[in-house]
Amino acid sequence: MQSNKMVQGKFWTLRQHFVGFPKETDFELKEEELPDPKDGEVLLEAVFLSVDPYMRPYSRIHMKEGDTMTGAQVSKVVQSRNPNYPVGSHVIVNCGWRTHYLSDGSDLKLVLSDWPEKLPLSLALGTIGMPGLTALYGLEEICEIKAGETILVNAAAGAVGTVVGQIAKIKGCRVVGCAGTDEKVSYLRELGFDQAFNYKTISSLEDALREAAPQGYDCFFENVGGDFTSVALAQMRPFGRIALCGSISMYNDEIPQTGPYINSYMILKQLRMEGFQVTRWEYKHYDGLKRLLAWVKEGKLQCREHITKGFNNMPAAFMAMLNGANIGKAVIKI
Amino acid sequence: MQSNKMVQGKFWTLRQHFVGFPKETDFELKEEELPDPKDGEVLLEAVFLSVDPYMRPYSRIHMKEGDTMTGAQVSKVVQSRNPNYPVGSHVIVNCGWRTHYLSDGSDLKLVLSDWPEKLPLSLALGTIGMPGLTALYGLEEICEIKAGETILVNAAAGAVGTVVGQIAKIKGCRVVGCAGTDEKVSYLRELGFDQAFNYKTISSLEDALREAAPQGYDCFFENVGGDFTSVALAQMRPFGRIALCGSISMYNDEIPQTGPYINSYMILKQLRMEGFQVTRWEYKHYDGLKRLLAWVKEGKLQCREHITKGFNNMPAAFMAMLNGANIGKAVIKI
Repeated sequence: MQSNKMVQGKFWTLRQHFVGFPKETDFELKEEELPDPKDGEVLLEAVFLSVDPYMRPYSRIHMKEGDTMTGAQVSKVVQSRNPNYPVGSHVIVNCGWRTHYLSDGSDLKLVLSDWPEKLPLSLALGTIGMPGLTALYGLEEICEIKAGETILVNAAAGAVGTVVGQIAKIKGCRVVGCAGTDEKVSYLRELGFDQAFNYKTISSLEDALREAAPQGYDCFFENVGGDFTSVALAQMRPFGRIALCGSISMYNDEIPQTGPYINSYMILKQLRMEGFQVTRWEYKHYDGLKRLLAWVKEGKLQCREHITKGFNNMPAAFMAMLNGANIGKAVIKI
Repeated sequence: MQSNKMVQGKFWTLRQHFVGFPKETDFELKEEELPDPKDGEVLLEAVFLSVDPYMRPYSRIHMKEGDTMTGAQVSKVVQSRNPNYPVGSHVIVNCGWRTHYLSDGSDLKLVLSDWPEKLPLSLALGTIGMPGLTALYGLEEICEIKAGETILVNAAAGAVGTVVGQIAKIKGCRVVGCAGTDEKVSYLRELGFDQAFNYKTISSLEDALREAAPQGYDCFFENVGGDFTSVALAQMRPFGRIALCGSISMYNDEIPQTGPYINSYMILKQLRMEGFQVTRWEYKHYDGLKRLLAWVKEGKLQCREHITKGFNNMPAAFMAMLNGANIGKAVIKI
């Protein structure tokens, strides 16, 4: 199973910290030679890579200039000296924006064993991956949604939002979603959202939210942040729960956005707001992925992807995703 | 037990809605004649009345001009045709700012039966009343404090804050409190707060909070709102809990205060913030009051009151309390 010539890999680094919206020159494409795997090791080749909104704030908080861009991928084992990961098997690995990676196996997860042949493996980065789990935990652990409740989700046509809306429907909730293009809004209706609107073409977010759910919202799955939060909070029902998942409208701000303090709404309606990260429930990821896969197999959970071809296009795909170009999960296919 | 002459009562109304900080002319003192109680009724005479911060936002949300000011009092039964409330017994009743009140008994709560003779009945409006329960529920139900954790409380020398800090100490926490005068800060130290500072004389709230707890805060009992919230949030530890109890710095604003959106902090640290009102746990008030009384009897919970004499001085006492003149609970004694 060993090759005799060195493998040439490519990887993307953060050349310089983003200032405002990322630009091409903030990234640098580099090459490296990877040695043959030693005993216990496997050599991986990327098949699908993920670009996600969190990478923008992550770079500011956790990275220094020159670091490899962070992120997960589905990769194929191309050389193996680890019996748990034979050549040809597919794994999920959080090894950053790179075409090849040498692993000792400790950071690998095999794709679920009952993954259907016909199902694209890229879904392991989306609906049946971290974004899907994020939606699931946000609704179950943070919002604690109950049948009959009304749920609001913004950035609803994104990787997480599409799953949020569909799981809420599976669980018997009424779902209102909003997104930034008419095409996205049509897609939300296709997915079974009860109400959907384009926040860019309405005259008043306050009115649009009120018309979509005159009785108010029990839960709010928040992916956007900024003004949206304070406008939506005013329309929560008593004891409403707000799951803070992301703040895509704020990630590129150099000067933090300001708005009215929310304390009064929170106290008056006895609202609960909680920020969360999917990693909190790592101990039950496996169970969560099985449930997501089952819903997909049953046809209850539709998946849509926005695929960009070519590793060299990763920065462009990342920036397009931050700009909202994608419907569903943004994925790079090698 | 019946008197033959009508009782003359006084009550304070909201003459006009407050604009900004309340002023004397916003209140109007009125008189009324109360008839003798009918069968099942009792006639009450106020002994102690409460002024609390919540009355300011309450007036805006729930009252119209001309309404009687809202609030609780300890009153004495002076005439009775209800065997549950004999003449001479003391009750807690939420009948507003008035000297006399005719009740059918359905809105009365007797002072706890094991209330010690030597303990002022006014405490039933403070440490062994709604403010005490507010502190208790905020810590137990919202913050879910655990021994060894570090708790921050602001407006710490107030009716609620003094109880928050002391209960947190009883439960084995480290407590940091802040208040607006040096005298209050000394009192917090007397009560056993681990750290206390005067937020009006420090040069930087951020630095003062960091120095008081370099490791950060697990819980934050928030009585103040506004800028304090966002500065303090930045110093919460991962999985920190914030109990939003009041926003005294914001109640008199005509234009809502603004500040940086907190979403990023909330997500990064996975913080949970919840607004609450003491009424949520009414079913266990009795149990809560018994526990508070027990701590007072054991000497674990000190009580301090700021007493204003004279029903006619209620508006002045209310305004002084909003201005922070009180250490401990602000009470009016007839």
